[in-house]
Amino acid sequence: MAIQLVTTAAQLRAESARLLQAKGGSSQGLVPTMGALHEGHAELARTAVEQNDVVVVSIFVNPLQFGEAVDLERYPRTLEADLALLDAVGVDLVFAPDVDEVYPGGEPRVRISAGPMAGKWEGASRPGHFDGALTVVAKLLHYGTPGAALGAELPAYRAYFGQKDAQQLTLVQRMVADLNFSVEIVPVPIVRSPDGLALSSRNRFLSAEEREAALVLSRALRLVEERANAHLPLDLDSARALIESQPLVELDYFDVVDPGTLEPLAENCRETPFRGEGLVLVAAKVGPIRLIDNVPLDS
Amino acid sequence: MAIQLVTTAAQLRAESARLLQAKGGSSQGLVPTMGALHEGHAELARTAVEQNDVVVVSIFVNPLQFGEAVDLERYPRTLEADLALLDAVGVDLVFAPDVDEVYPGGEPRVRISAGPMAGKWEGASRPGHFDGALTVVAKLLHYGTPGAALGAELPAYRAYFGQKDAQQLTLVQRMVADLNFSVEIVPVPIVRSPDGLALSSRNRFLSAEEREAALVLSRALRLVEERANAHLPLDLDSARALIESQPLVELDYFDVVDPGTLEPLAENCRETPFRGEGLVLVAAKVGPIRLIDNVPLDS
Repeated sequence: MAIQLVTTAAQLRAESARLLQAKGGSSQGLVPTMGALHEGHAELARTAVEQNDVVVVSIFVNPLQFGEAVDLERYPRTLEADLALLDAVGVDLVFAPDVDEVYPGGEPRVRISAGPMAGKWEGASRPGHFDGALTVVAKLLHYGTPGAALGAELPAYRAYFGQKDAQQLTLVQRMVADLNFSVEIVPVPIVRSPDGLALSSRNRFLSAEEREAALVLSRALRLVEERANAHLPLDLDSARALIESQPLVELDYFDVVDPGTLEPLAENCRETPFRGEGLVLVAAKVGPIRLIDNVPLDS
Repeated sequence: MAIQLVTTAAQLRAESARLLQAKGGSSQGLVPTMGALHEGHAELARTAVEQNDVVVVSIFVNPLQFGEAVDLERYPRTLEADLALLDAVGVDLVFAPDVDEVYPGGEPRVRISAGPMAGKWEGASRPGHFDGALTVVAKLLHYGTPGAALGAELPAYRAYFGQKDAQQLTLVQRMVADLNFSVEIVPVPIVRSPDGLALSSRNRFLSAEEREAALVLSRALRLVEERANAHLPLDLDSARALIESQPLVELDYFDVVDPGTLEPLAENCRETPFRGEGLVLVAAKVGPIRLIDNVPLDS
């Protein structure tokens, strides 16, 4: 394999600088992941490889963003397969630090506070999750900053996040804007199975029956998307009813929000012809597995 | 004057990059201030000028770190005098953005959380102060990052903070370590008047009598410092009694802490011969003016 694995921030900085110079490169891309990679991550990495001379993928299961120790322990770890997938896509460097490298001396005292946009949706059932996620993203964005230049111009720096975790993506964009990180955040669209199911590392835990039932989520989203494209009222109630008609699925939320603030759009978009931008969010338990999905509206 | 004034982050980035190239420079220093500059700030700027090819001083009175709107309004603003002082010291660039430049769209949603080290000492009487201060420091550290290079090596990047605001300095060091900012924080010792009073922009509000009374703070600190240097028990009670003997002074806290964590040192350092590192912190009201001072111990 051509791909290199580094485990310390110092190695990452040195090795990415060396690669940037060796390639005569002028751009560096970072793809933060927690491993257990699937085709959705491959798409993130491919986009980064297309757009940058040097690409780093980080693999770190961040204890700070797990509420329950058992969830952290159970999180799938598949480093060998992850490396093979990233090598095939053309990634240069994998940064897979251990917990002591990222949090020497234990949990950080100074952190990112994700603020009011983190209290809803996924944040409502996972208190502290987005504070922990943004804290590690802030660290990773700093770690992944290009460590060399070629002449006067500094390299471009881009980081790639999937639209699948829409609230995380919005919060990362907000953090980068609010705290003026020198990086361009590039959102990458959801990758779906041919039947419509959004790829997720959790899908592996679904039984065949649950997997079939889970398709109702993307169907409900598509229903709203089609109504938006036709400038019809969004009729969220019908979409919700479709999900609730599926006995294996327990709906948590299904709503349409402002993509910048994650605030629910005014009620009238549900009753009057839809024009503009929106983001339809859904979360539900399918059997024992919590799934999320979303679709952007722009009509 | 040779010094240049810029008011937007884009100008700062472009102009500092131009200067770095014009000078063939390999280092950039940032001195964050709130203006109302005195000889203490001049010392920060001088240190930065000695150590860096390009030096930026930011002047921004940060609304986020003021509890009361009236304190924010009353904060002295002396831009002309500040520019003259910084020009004389050899600073290249002053970055003096307005509030809309720093907080477009209002207060930031995602912020820095200063955490448990911010709850004590100055933080105890100013809830939210250090969250606001660290949030703007994070932004300024990103703004001030060198925007150009000369060849493969990236410029060194240093930021200068006074030891006078010891808790702020410690929290900034902690933030930079915990969130992996690519900058070296350089602490600069307190500048004192010949009579021992630590310089502060608040000293201008002291009457002659209050100013005289305020000297008890540095005297009490010196008492403890001398006992530490002689490896004697620190005897904080005598130092506190000295301060409390001064009727114009109302003591808030006087304690010796671990410089890294700001936790009070174990009681036995007060009763057994002192060896090691410590930081003696004092805060008191002198007439209506709250003053802080401190002295590091290393014996």
